[in-house]
Amino acid sequence: MNDDIVRQVLNFRQSRNWEQFHNPKDLAISLSIEASELLENFQWKTSEEALDLKKENIADELADVLIYSIYLADALDLNIEDVVLNKLAKNERKYPVDKAFGRKDKYTDL
Amino acid sequence: MNDDIVRQVLNFRQSRNWEQFHNPKDLAISLSIEASELLENFQWKTSEEALDLKKENIADELADVLIYSIYLADALDLNIEDVVLNKLAKNERKYPVDKAFGRKDKYTDL
Amino acid sequence: MNDDIVRQVLNFRQSRNWEQFHNPKDLAISLSIEASELLENFQWKTSEEALDLKKENIADELADVLIYSIYLADALDLNIEDVVLNKLAKNERKYPVDKAFGRKDKYTDL
Amino acid sequence: MNDDIVRQVLNFRQSRNWEQFHNPKDLAISLSIEASELLENFQWKTSEEALDLKKENIADELADVLIYSIYLADALDLNIEDVVLNKLAKNERKYPVDKAFGRKDKYTDL
Repeated sequence: MNDDIVRQVLNFRQSRNWEQFHNPKDLAISLSIEASELLENFQWKTSEEALDLKKENIADELADVLIYSIYLADALDLNIEDVVLNKLAKNERKYPVDKAFGRKDKYTDL
Repeated sequence: MNDDIVRQVLNFRQSRNWEQFHNPKDLAISLSIEASELLENFQWKTSEEALDLKKENIADELADVLIYSIYLADALDLNIEDVVLNKLAKNERKYPVDKAFGRKDKYTDL
Repeated sequence: MNDDIVRQVLNFRQSRNWEQFHNPKDLAISLSIEASELLENFQWKTSEEALDLKKENIADELADVLIYSIYLADALDLNIEDVVLNKLAKNERKYPVDKAFGRKDKYTDL
Repeated sequence: MNDDIVRQVLNFRQSRNWEQFHNPKDLAISLSIEASELLENFQWKTSEEALDLKKENIADELADVLIYSIYLADALDLNIEDVVLNKLAKNERKYPVDKAFGRKDKYTDL
């Protein structure tokens, strides 16, 4: 996440004196709740219907997921981009292109 | 999210020919599942115990949440940073500093 | 839930001296985690594929959801069957048959 | 679940002609969403605060979890009580009392 975006998200919380309410466990709960609210836009619908009718709401919930991700990374003293790069490196090893190409099997079945 | 990170995540998928398996509804399901796996690190533990024992795993699951967020934004043809900025603007209006300072009430109760 | 089933589930926990670890918030977290593990069986699959390949696992996760529901009801000092009957009564009022027949609209749109 | 409760839940759906909208994958999604709505009552709160302020809402969401569990069991052609009993039997073998008494370790660590 661009440093400026991260700073804006953290400033938003700080200017309202809300850090006092944030702790890692409740941040993890919040992240899970927002992901569920995002999923709710697809309930009883096909992907097409959901994108047709609920795109703005999906975008808002995705934003909430990203905002809580920023708070969690901050609580863990981690940099968002390092977190992603480290996992991509692990995934490269678990799913080498020559074995994983075009296959949706879990790495233990490659 | 830094454009380079987004590109690396999308390239990872493309070089393995995996886009064929991705559709918005299943991406939303996946995002929810990863958020739940992140939360599982805090099950039966305090925030402190979880950060002490499970920090690497929490970071990995946070990465998975962010990676699926990138795929979803791509599926919706949205830019991650615009998505966050739009929501911050909405939140600014719902939670003006003078009313929301130090209060965890929902905006309907401000 | 049949009283005998409830009693067996509570006895299972008691004979292992596990009540000490249970508190309502972590029980709610656990219920959410198990529901997510159940959903994971449908990830990237159609309903038919999931039932074909993963029926036993779905049944096991459904059992975990029900077991945690029993622990939560116990923590709230509620009877499982009263809980369901009360909600059915509320749903009857929100979705009268003459208005709701064949319609999947939310009650606010009836 | 008492046969009568199951029948009342299935009748509620049938009299509104709603089975047409239910398929196992969307039922699994719905179950996950309801579990998350239940968990939301504990967000930013201790167990005590949540039970103090939100007990009725928690009971309603627990009912929704149980109702969707009944629909899922029906979709899988399974009996709710058999599902729970089978899992309890598996858990008995994974967590024998003499090894698991008073310990919250996962069975692989017993």
